[in-house]
Amino acid sequence: MHETADLVIRPATGADLPAIVAMLADDPLGATRESPDDLTPYVAAFKRLTEDPHQHVMVAVRGERVVGTLQLTFVPGLSRRGSTRSIIEGVRVHADERGGGLGTRFIEWAVERSREEGCRLVQLTSDVSRTDAHRFYERLGFTASHVGFKLQL
Amino acid sequence: MHETADLVIRPATGADLPAIVAMLADDPLGATRESPDDLTPYVAAFKRLTEDPHQHVMVAVRGERVVGTLQLTFVPGLSRRGSTRSIIEGVRVHADERGGGLGTRFIEWAVERSREEGCRLVQLTSDVSRTDAHRFYERLGFTASHVGFKLQL
Repeated sequence: MHETADLVIRPATGADLPAIVAMLADDPLGATRESPDDLTPYVAAFKRLTEDPHQHVMVAVRGERVVGTLQLTFVPGLSRRGSTRSIIEGVRVHADERGGGLGTRFIEWAVERSREEGCRLVQLTSDVSRTDAHRFYERLGFTASHVGFKLQL
Repeated sequence: MHETADLVIRPATGADLPAIVAMLADDPLGATRESPDDLTPYVAAFKRLTEDPHQHVMVAVRGERVVGTLQLTFVPGLSRRGSTRSIIEGVRVHADERGGGLGTRFIEWAVERSREEGCRLVQLTSDVSRTDAHRFYERLGFTASHVGFKLQL
């Protein structure tokens, strides 16, 4: 039944956290970074996210099941004639749904939502090891024009 | 006198906008993107920035002169056990000050401020053509671990 149910993209609620964290952890990089058995830090972070009107943690739901998540952030700025940009982070699609077009639909949703918000640029970074993801974003019209630097504190 | 005056890093005010926009435009990439003769879109963007407590547009000032700018954004998130990260954007150093250590001091300030805010990660993207900047960020401890994708709307 799940496979045929319609897909709904909506803001995440606290009740979605276990499913979101399970998806964050079910990933070659996420496996070492996440703690799905201890939701405490995620509950605190979700409170910070809901208090910030520029943050949008979204879920894709099929039937009653959370099958995808992403975070869309709107960032005002001075450069590019005062452009607001959006940043997409934490994109995950449930293993059962990969290759089925959900990722495309979800990113297209984020791009359209960014356009409605008046953003002039959508950006994201992807670990250099995720070569499949790079092809996916290029197919959706993104350009790999930048190097993404990170410093862990 | 300017050369010997102490450097101060402080939040930008509306009065700093002409100097900030001049620096954004005085750049191989910025030259085609900015409109220093028409500040209207920057004034509107600066209002959006000052209304958002997670945005910090900073200037470096030597004597009375604005010699650097950057934008520091704090972004809460669920991934990495609910980590908040900071994003550095729009880094510019006045031509007269390049190579003099101001860039290092400014980025070190941003990293320290991110640490105080409880961030677990500092990130930024740099156009693939800015190879000098890439060496600069690597010297400061950043890792070029990601590909930065952009989509212009």
